[in-house]
Amino acid sequence: MTAIAGTESTAELGARVLASDRRALAKAITLVESTRPEDRAASDELLGILVPHAGRALRVGVSGAPGVGKSTFIDAFGETLVDTGLGVAVLAVDPSSSLTGGSILGDRTRMGALASRPQAFIRQSPSSGSLGGVARRTREAILVCDAAGFDRILVETVGVGQSEIAVASMVDVFVLLLMPGAGDELQGIKRGILELADLVLINKADGEQRQSAERFARTTAGALELLRPSRGGTAVPAVLAVSALERRGMDAVAGAIADLYAELERSGELAAKRAAQRRAWLDSAVNDALESRFYAHPDVAAARTAVTEAVDRGEITPTEGARRLLALAK
Amino acid sequence: MTAIAGTESTAELGARVLASDRRALAKAITLVESTRPEDRAASDELLGILVPHAGRALRVGVSGAPGVGKSTFIDAFGETLVDTGLGVAVLAVDPSSSLTGGSILGDRTRMGALASRPQAFIRQSPSSGSLGGVARRTREAILVCDAAGFDRILVETVGVGQSEIAVASMVDVFVLLLMPGAGDELQGIKRGILELADLVLINKADGEQRQSAERFARTTAGALELLRPSRGGTAVPAVLAVSALERRGMDAVAGAIADLYAELERSGELAAKRAAQRRAWLDSAVNDALESRFYAHPDVAAARTAVTEAVDRGEITPTEGARRLLALAK
Repeated sequence: MTAIAGTESTAELGARVLASDRRALAKAITLVESTRPEDRAASDELLGILVPHAGRALRVGVSGAPGVGKSTFIDAFGETLVDTGLGVAVLAVDPSSSLTGGSILGDRTRMGALASRPQAFIRQSPSSGSLGGVARRTREAILVCDAAGFDRILVETVGVGQSEIAVASMVDVFVLLLMPGAGDELQGIKRGILELADLVLINKADGEQRQSAERFARTTAGALELLRPSRGGTAVPAVLAVSALERRGMDAVAGAIADLYAELERSGELAAKRAAQRRAWLDSAVNDALESRFYAHPDVAAARTAVTEAVDRGEITPTEGARRLLALAK
Repeated sequence: MTAIAGTESTAELGARVLASDRRALAKAITLVESTRPEDRAASDELLGILVPHAGRALRVGVSGAPGVGKSTFIDAFGETLVDTGLGVAVLAVDPSSSLTGGSILGDRTRMGALASRPQAFIRQSPSSGSLGGVARRTREAILVCDAAGFDRILVETVGVGQSEIAVASMVDVFVLLLMPGAGDELQGIKRGILELADLVLINKADGEQRQSAERFARTTAGALELLRPSRGGTAVPAVLAVSALERRGMDAVAGAIADLYAELERSGELAAKRAAQRRAWLDSAVNDALESRFYAHPDVAAARTAVTEAVDRGEITPTEGARRLLALAK
């Protein structure tokens, strides 16, 4: 049994997390998110205690470009869930990115209504480090919240980088927020992100924009129907116009997500999806570590730049470059 | 200097490839595609001779679901290119898949008109082995054809698996063939493939289908315009209705591809794209080898199933599973 910050053992911390103690939950997430090597043993021990109790929560990813109103949406939607008696945890991935500017306000300001509800827990996930590191820590924070008994875990990410692909690989349902643009085209969404969506929401259907948002929802639905493949059982995602600001459409969103879950469970896809996600996480954890070890090898580190530059200049094939590096660390 | 099949040295073979000798070209591709470990040294030596002479050819990927008419299209389009004085090499990736049934006819029958032209070279790439292995061998076959002086290299792939993502990562321009479906929806195209396309062709705009193909081209163009992101410089791909059977629209395709190249060269994106592709190829070659080595370690091989199953059942976290495996092979 490992002693951690203060005098509490990981077993005691784990027991408090399982009892839904909010202070213990915050402490546990800080522990699993720690990048300090000396925290890793306690973190692994804690996760070992918690993981048999996880798996009951539904995990929903929420993505969208900066300015689309993700925080306002999660605030409104989270309250709707809380109002039906559900416990809601929110994990925000990379909200402090300089691209968004959102984090300056802090979580409690960003989601003020939800933050004031005792059934809710809001946590900003770390944004520093490699994507692989951020993804690992977010996945473990999801496990901690799941074991702590929350019914819904909302994972928020910004739709401008690779992070939403990582988030889509750790949730059950992926929700994409859009808003009508100047020319009614998609604003600020990276190639490939739309393909991940299980549900598309056109936000800001409020005030003068309401009609244009509803029109945009119809044309988006039509375009998705045309462009989505017909085979392989990939359903076309529903498109709903909502107003997070006016809190309109939140029940419809909750209903659409409940329908998606019912279908995932009925078809057995939910269990298969989660097993595949765990397998992929295992593979990427192994590969990341192998890669780090390899490039940390002194001979490889010394030769790497010269080999990479020879490949960049087209002087040797990448296969030959790989062969040269691999020969240095058997 | 390594002696290969028969008495010819790799230096002699390389010189003959550089002189565009078709028999040497076929022999060279067989060598680089060989999976026999004893051929690897000669293959590496040959590529070392050829690679300084590669980089001039334009590389065009051609994908589409089985039955869309890829072979007929390449036959017609290849002839159009040959008629303008260009040398055309065709590499078909995975055409012998049981899904397509196309390979039974053989290359010369599949692309009869093009195969009879002396300026053309048609080669079926290996379809056996891992995707990584097939991708490596196709990339090297591209280099051989490039060094042999072909102006255009057409890489054909089937739009049903992961192979077109691999092909998109080794060409300059990716062309996707579609045809109007029963309900005018996309037929047989996997999620994410449409996102890769630089140019979309609606084939089979012939006979009674001509009008519906042209209508489908217009609605597809509209949908792509709506769904394609507006930022990040990602241009919306052009959509053209063509008939490979009646050889109509081939000049327009050649023109559209020439326009794409002119823009890629003007913006400097072509050189950047190729350098990024070489870098990604180096990384994946290193990672594939590290992974193979690791899982071949006897202790890892012995423990792998039990650890994977514990992760699958949710008994341990994937991070913990990775830690246990990694501890076995330092």
